[in-house]
Amino acid sequence: MYSSLLLEKLREALRCLPGVGPKSAQRMVFHLLQRDRDGGIRLAQALTQAMLEINHCSDCRTFTEQPICSICTNPRRQKSGQICIVESPADIYAIEQTAQFDGRYFVLMGHLSPLDGIGPDEIGLKRLQERLKNEKIEEVILGTNPTVEGEATANYIAEICAHYGVMASRIAHGVPVGSELEMVDGITLSHSLAGRHPIKL
Amino acid sequence: MYSSLLLEKLREALRCLPGVGPKSAQRMVFHLLQRDRDGGIRLAQALTQAMLEINHCSDCRTFTEQPICSICTNPRRQKSGQICIVESPADIYAIEQTAQFDGRYFVLMGHLSPLDGIGPDEIGLKRLQERLKNEKIEEVILGTNPTVEGEATANYIAEICAHYGVMASRIAHGVPVGSELEMVDGITLSHSLAGRHPIKL
Ligand SMILES: [Zn+2]
Ligand SMILES: [Zn+2]
Repeated sequence: MYSSLLLEKLREALRCLPGVGPKSAQRMVFHLLQRDRDGGIRLAQALTQAMLEINHCSDCRTFTEQPICSICTNPRRQKSGQICIVESPADIYAIEQTAQFDGRYFVLMGHLSPLDGIGPDEIGLKRLQERLKNEKIEEVILGTNPTVEGEATANYIAEICAHYGVMASRIAHGVPVGSELEMVDGITLSHSLAGRHPIKL
Repeated sequence: MYSSLLLEKLREALRCLPGVGPKSAQRMVFHLLQRDRDGGIRLAQALTQAMLEINHCSDCRTFTEQPICSICTNPRRQKSGQICIVESPADIYAIEQTAQFDGRYFVLMGHLSPLDGIGPDEIGLKRLQERLKNEKIEEVILGTNPTVEGEATANYIAEICAHYGVMASRIAHGVPVGSELEMVDGITLSHSLAGRHPIKL
């Protein structure tokens, strides 16, 4: 409003970013204009490319600009015969950072939620069944969130796996490493007790 | 790295925004891709336009895409005969929000800093002198920051104003409204005492 319409437009547009309020949007605008116009231009190009070209992998449904993503086409990852099912692409990042898993993924882009009209088709289970039928899959690891909806979705998929004779496993719930027992909620603690295993010495 | 190069590029590019670390950049990318691609496209366009088209007002040096900004060309604001000198365009926003000033501005885009090679020319004082000479200016309000550099810059400009017979005033330093006296630093408090004024009943 004050001196530049384009400045106001940019300030408004920045609000589409999560966690960016009016104050930080203004700080971003002035920072870019005063100190990093090249960075601003690069960001605009990266945004345009990403928004227009990134789509979903036709095998695992994660974000990719390729028809099939680089995880799905990686022969080493195919060899493992494991598929980890997660709710969102961000979960892949979290699991990859552990460097504990070298199979492939399948991204539901949500979870079953009948009241919201999100059924098996909406979370891609048709494609998953095709894969269970046509590929040599040894194990499906159910990595949905430990929420009511995540558990229901995991159970639903476990039944599909049983139908195709594929072993399904669920990631362990328990006490987070580094936490204090007295601070952990009861449901987590009872999962942790039920999932106890003998100590190997 | 994981499934999409464009996604990684966007995540990196977002880091040019102040206050955006790796975690929040990732959250922004997924939010845009999953829920607001239109917002992402609009942001890209606003960025490109702002970075390429916004320049400095040739009268007051603030950011604008016009040759002269809308504050400088506003006849009502010209009439007041007051010019408030500030260090950055963000300061204009802060002052406008008080709705207490309806004159025009002059933006130094910094302050005098001889050791960094920032002298009178770098902060636009040549243009300010032209304006003091050619325009009918009644008062210059020195709104530079209450820092050592801001004070030195204010004093330097006050001397220029004296040379052109224009009244120069300094914004008041004092105890911030709503603060507790015992928490205020000594220099501010002594400014506050020196600047005391009789209570009008
Ligand atoms: Zn894939
Ligand atoms: Zn102007």
